[in-house]
Amino acid sequence: MKPNVAIMGATGAVGAELLELLDERNFPLNSLKLLASARSAGKKIEFKGETLTVEELTHDSFEGIDLVLASAGGSLSKEYAPSAVKAGAIVVDNTSFFRMTEGVPLVVPEVNPEAIKEHKGIIANPNCSTIIMALPLAPLHKAFGIKRCVVSTYQAASGAGAKAMEELKEETEAHLKGEAYENTVINQPYAFNLFPHNSPMLDNGYVEEEMKMVNETKKIFQDPDFKVTATCIRVPIMRAHSESINLEFEKPFTIEEAYELLKNAEGVEVYEDRENNLWATPLMASGKDPVYVGRIRRDLSCENGLELWVVGDQVRKGAALNAIQIAEKLEY
Amino acid sequence: MKPNVAIMGATGAVGAELLELLDERNFPLNSLKLLASARSAGKKIEFKGETLTVEELTHDSFEGIDLVLASAGGSLSKEYAPSAVKAGAIVVDNTSFFRMTEGVPLVVPEVNPEAIKEHKGIIANPNCSTIIMALPLAPLHKAFGIKRCVVSTYQAASGAGAKAMEELKEETEAHLKGEAYENTVINQPYAFNLFPHNSPMLDNGYVEEEMKMVNETKKIFQDPDFKVTATCIRVPIMRAHSESINLEFEKPFTIEEAYELLKNAEGVEVYEDRENNLWATPLMASGKDPVYVGRIRRDLSCENGLELWVVGDQVRKGAALNAIQIAEKLEY
Repeated sequence: MKPNVAIMGATGAVGAELLELLDERNFPLNSLKLLASARSAGKKIEFKGETLTVEELTHDSFEGIDLVLASAGGSLSKEYAPSAVKAGAIVVDNTSFFRMTEGVPLVVPEVNPEAIKEHKGIIANPNCSTIIMALPLAPLHKAFGIKRCVVSTYQAASGAGAKAMEELKEETEAHLKGEAYENTVINQPYAFNLFPHNSPMLDNGYVEEEMKMVNETKKIFQDPDFKVTATCIRVPIMRAHSESINLEFEKPFTIEEAYELLKNAEGVEVYEDRENNLWATPLMASGKDPVYVGRIRRDLSCENGLELWVVGDQVRKGAALNAIQIAEKLEY
Repeated sequence: MKPNVAIMGATGAVGAELLELLDERNFPLNSLKLLASARSAGKKIEFKGETLTVEELTHDSFEGIDLVLASAGGSLSKEYAPSAVKAGAIVVDNTSFFRMTEGVPLVVPEVNPEAIKEHKGIIANPNCSTIIMALPLAPLHKAFGIKRCVVSTYQAASGAGAKAMEELKEETEAHLKGEAYENTVINQPYAFNLFPHNSPMLDNGYVEEEMKMVNETKKIFQDPDFKVTATCIRVPIMRAHSESINLEFEKPFTIEEAYELLKNAEGVEVYEDRENNLWATPLMASGKDPVYVGRIRRDLSCENGLELWVVGDQVRKGAALNAIQIAEKLEY
């Protein structure tokens, strides 16, 4: 059976990527409904040669819908996902709202596909930085047991939305002309600048984005004792996230084994041009499906340590692609 | 006695900063000689209202000179520093050439000033990323014993020289206009992009820049067993370096103790606006003397761990200022 699909937040950055991927992957759907705020209602969007009109999201939007791809923000998912489930739809939610809710599977399809079947109507898509990290970590954790993971991120403007990307562009233009610019999306200068991630600061000194990486990874790996510490930094990059990841393993390993596991990991591509000292960058990873891994080397500072450089498209595998891959594994 | 001073590499980015700092700090000097390649000889540079003419660097340039501030590249230091020493000068060398040479002190004046007096004519200025890291680490290492340090850097264009800064600006302008741009200084796209540090790749999988942080820190701390692993990344920032630093201590500690040590550390400034979630950034640190530290928090992933966010001006404390602070402690 081909599902009737609705996209919540069809006019956002992830919404646009969802539409592109549904087309590109020839996702089997019976009908497609685009939902957004009243402000965007009436907007026309092309999909496979058809012109679709964006409709206002209401509690009655979900009649006859089998699958909702939700990407309109946590508060809207909180309010509308239960209505969608009541109407008989399965919701794949891109927001953070239900991720840590018990009974809601949190899924990276290459890592824990078996969790999908435990859903009760809602399946959560993890945080972008978490997905990008989980892919290369999963096979290494299985083989050698990750004792501790220290990650520092280099996160793109796309993570703060389409408006932040536009602001970075405009602000950089102004900066190069020597003109003043007043930031309205990001709360500090962003052109030729970087800063600790602007999600809310918690009592333990971490920001929410960092704790998402810590807690969501434990849930995906079904390992409440999995040890992660994260430092999340926003850099003046458009749309792919990079991560410097340091791992300590329980068991001894060889670099050859690590390479072999990463080369065979689904969704992961080992990318290195050692001779020219060229590695994955956010520009080359933008618009691509895989999570790229390089700078694979034995850590000099501890016994069973490994250093990795990981880059993935935040909008794609970090959000839209992962959601669609979940949807592709569903039965309606 | 006020020294007769010569600057080797007077026309480069660090050379310009050395001149500015000699003026700003009212460095006590008797005369100032500007040395550079034949190509730059004849160029006029203002210093304290006087017009100085850049002279070509030769083996005879050092007659009567007491202090050489060298910043013209490793191969020129290798060739000319011995001539300067033979002529009776003390060389404070900004290049990497002599840093690991036995008998050459490697000095961060706030950390190991006592090493200065062991010099035999040459004193080495550490790598910029190393200096910026060593300042906040020194008091913590003394108090709690650093068992292991994992650092990821966010390094500015200035570290690749004035030409790289100009290229980043030009390339970003072209990128925003949608025009093609051919990189000539950096070997890959740099506008709205970042990449693993472009210093030579070594057999152990680390790049030279990373091994400088590893080996130089051991020498500065006089602790051959000091454990560091580093991942160095070049970001599209003009002139300050940032570092995400994870520390594991031998001894238990309290966050209050860590704050107190960092607040009292010479050359370090704790910078945090927790309420507005604002922390040190490369833009705010540019042109400033201190190394800024923030995001000070207990690491959730191990017993005695600490996370730090550190930002310092690469050209200033990372190079020129540190060299001049060494020179200020010398006796001629």
